[in-house]
Amino acid sequence: MTNGNQEIPYKIFLTEDELPEYWFDLRPDMVNKPAPILHPGTLQPCVAADLEAIFCEGCVAQELNTSERWIEIPGEVRDFYKMYRPSPLVRAYCLEKVLDTPAKIYYKFEGSNTSGSHKLNSAVAQVYYAKKQGITGLTTETGAGQWGTALAMACGYFGIDLKVFMVKISSQQKPYRKAVMETYGAQVIASPSDTTAAGRKILELMPDTGGSLGCAISEAIEVAATTPNTRYVLGSVLNHVLLHQSVIGLESEAAMAKYDIEPDIIIGCAGGGSNLGGLIGPFMSRKLKGQADYRFIAVEPASCPSFTRGRFAYDFGDTGCTTPLMKMYTLGSGFIPGPNHAGGLRYHGMNSVLSQLFHDGYLEARSYPQNSIFEAATLFARAEGTLPAPESAHAIKAAIDEALACKESGEAKTIFFGLSGTGYFDLAAYLSYNEGSLGDYVPSDEELESGFTTLPKVE
Amino acid sequence: MTNGNQEIPYKIFLTEDELPEYWFDLRPDMVNKPAPILHPGTLQPCVAADLEAIFCEGCVAQELNTSERWIEIPGEVRDFYKMYRPSPLVRAYCLEKVLDTPAKIYYKFEGSNTSGSHKLNSAVAQVYYAKKQGITGLTTETGAGQWGTALAMACGYFGIDLKVFMVKISSQQKPYRKAVMETYGAQVIASPSDTTAAGRKILELMPDTGGSLGCAISEAIEVAATTPNTRYVLGSVLNHVLLHQSVIGLESEAAMAKYDIEPDIIIGCAGGGSNLGGLIGPFMSRKLKGQADYRFIAVEPASCPSFTRGRFAYDFGDTGCTTPLMKMYTLGSGFIPGPNHAGGLRYHGMNSVLSQLFHDGYLEARSYPQNSIFEAATLFARAEGTLPAPESAHAIKAAIDEALACKESGEAKTIFFGLSGTGYFDLAAYLSYNEGSLGDYVPSDEELESGFTTLPKVE
Repeated sequence: MTNGNQEIPYKIFLTEDELPEYWFDLRPDMVNKPAPILHPGTLQPCVAADLEAIFCEGCVAQELNTSERWIEIPGEVRDFYKMYRPSPLVRAYCLEKVLDTPAKIYYKFEGSNTSGSHKLNSAVAQVYYAKKQGITGLTTETGAGQWGTALAMACGYFGIDLKVFMVKISSQQKPYRKAVMETYGAQVIASPSDTTAAGRKILELMPDTGGSLGCAISEAIEVAATTPNTRYVLGSVLNHVLLHQSVIGLESEAAMAKYDIEPDIIIGCAGGGSNLGGLIGPFMSRKLKGQADYRFIAVEPASCPSFTRGRFAYDFGDTGCTTPLMKMYTLGSGFIPGPNHAGGLRYHGMNSVLSQLFHDGYLEARSYPQNSIFEAATLFARAEGTLPAPESAHAIKAAIDEALACKESGEAKTIFFGLSGTGYFDLAAYLSYNEGSLGDYVPSDEELESGFTTLPKVE
Repeated sequence: MTNGNQEIPYKIFLTEDELPEYWFDLRPDMVNKPAPILHPGTLQPCVAADLEAIFCEGCVAQELNTSERWIEIPGEVRDFYKMYRPSPLVRAYCLEKVLDTPAKIYYKFEGSNTSGSHKLNSAVAQVYYAKKQGITGLTTETGAGQWGTALAMACGYFGIDLKVFMVKISSQQKPYRKAVMETYGAQVIASPSDTTAAGRKILELMPDTGGSLGCAISEAIEVAATTPNTRYVLGSVLNHVLLHQSVIGLESEAAMAKYDIEPDIIIGCAGGGSNLGGLIGPFMSRKLKGQADYRFIAVEPASCPSFTRGRFAYDFGDTGCTTPLMKMYTLGSGFIPGPNHAGGLRYHGMNSVLSQLFHDGYLEARSYPQNSIFEAATLFARAEGTLPAPESAHAIKAAIDEALACKESGEAKTIFFGLSGTGYFDLAAYLSYNEGSLGDYVPSDEELESGFTTLPKVE
């Protein structure tokens, strides 16, 4: 258990001066660029004006960027980052010992803030750009609540009004998530609600519905589009979100450079792609340029297998089929994922940059059923102290499997994964796992086919 | 908001090499020593053998220490500390700006671990000494659940069986706390239970009771006393707990020394005293020696005002009147605190070292009703990001009041407080506050008198 003669500390912290001054965009380094996003009406590539009715200008510019590698992080955003960043790169000495593996395991821990995850990195950036543009109100949707919490924190800090449409069943099951968002000053509305046309329409058809993320998105977009000085913000999938999250990978790279650490395998969980994309950015850049050869592994739940069983096609971002079309690995916007407690990984599609990289063979993907995920999470918690988010535990599971493979082969590989958040607000899932009542739902081929029938005909 | 030309970073981190190698015991520096703990039968000062039937030998030796200033932190404990320590000393730039105060505000943040508070500092030490002694099982009680969680983490790491007697009403209201403890491998038993004679007796008299901390203590002590190789552990009040918590103050002192920071006012919340005692140790030592003059402020809830309205007398540590007697500020072991959500501050007594210091005028104390505490907590959360534990918010409230007094007077004092934990598992209280349904309970003089009638006749 002791660090002994190792010169690498348990936690590598950068100083505040070493906090990155620029975000990193991977797109300029890609040979096969991600396909452009298309206007759902004209099927032509979106221009800024198409997106600025809904999104803030600063974010739209970043979304449509293809040539700038480095985007300066505004001083106000860096100051906010300094309250919880740089985050530590942790050497998992205790996990290594428990696994009795020759592998060296590192993880970047993004859970040291009240939102409990990496989501805050993009929330503060998006709220900053809204404030700069003179926007006074923002809307968003939230399912599990992590994104809503992060956004509430950022809005509380910058003094922007926030309406969060929270899937009704989640708001009933997670009153505490609502309490956190309200403490930071956000207004939390159970969706469907009677405050929007979209909500009223659903309530008329299905008065007893518990709501859905698709419906909450529709309500949030409607309010943003119809309220003066108000915009809509999204916590994953889009490229400007990945840009903001690149701070994770950049800090990791800088921390590793301090101790000459060179990873062999880089692992991240993948839902919409914000965590994985941010984590791997600078490392993937080196691989694309032939400067290094890393194995990248995306890990997803078997219940929502966009990479491992999805199709590479243009699709809508929402179940209401109103958003621009993105080319991505998708299960179809009509796919309804089965019960899985990793709410952050229950999205039908995947960011377009990551999708292109996977398509081109730069990225591996694998999926696991959820009981094996909670088994890994429990082992990790007892060894390393931190109780992981179920989402993050997908990366832990793959890291453990790779470390055990090293034990088998006797190789001392360096394994690096992203611990994107803590599980403090996901304890209902741990409770079910401890009681043995957690199911291992895997969709049948027929269920997947039914999702694919909802794909739009574009090409 | 910007750090600007300030050379002090938002967060001052020590390196792992700078983690203290010794805990600090304040008693050798005290002119008036705390009164000895007495055997409840003989009323004579306890000797080691009296305590070793219940507590681990290593902890008993530390409890009875009066001459050693520095106690070496065992290597295994330091290695565990390295997973979450050194903890940051934070400059509250954003809070200062929101308050528009010339005061400089610092806080030591102990919430960056899954137990969510400073409790882990003593839990790991106590479990280590148990393991060293060949103890295979530990028992404890928990009310709000923070101490139980910290102990479960330490026991999970060292491979010691743990039985946590959790007040029944708490275990029903906080199933998630139970889930965390079980994830770390602890057995959580709702108290009163039919697994002990003490529990069965209560159940026979009051089959529908929701339990009490006093009853849970009795059950935990009974199991420890009647099970081979099993001991009982406590998370506050005792002097060896304060010793372990001295790591908070020592790290704070070292971090301040790096930037020539000299506090004028040092503030901590006070329940049993583990946080406050650990925070102020090395600073109080300098004051006792005449090397520095700090103001120390203990902050307690108006609903449980041991310092501000209690008596300095010998009293039992438990409501069952079975523990050794400690001389302390107390409301009487029969005092039942009114509803207050800061569960960690609902103890009738106060550590004996702190009690003596208060008695001798080295320490101020004040109390606040809970709505003002949550108001301060919300202001802090929006400014500084972190959602504080209600306990810690008592220190925040006093720090804000002192900072506003500086604004009034124009003085640029340096205010330092302990942020002992996060409020992630206390959201029911925030929910009540947000809804405006939190009461401000303050006991009447008659209620306090009724508590004092339970004081034993010792002197």
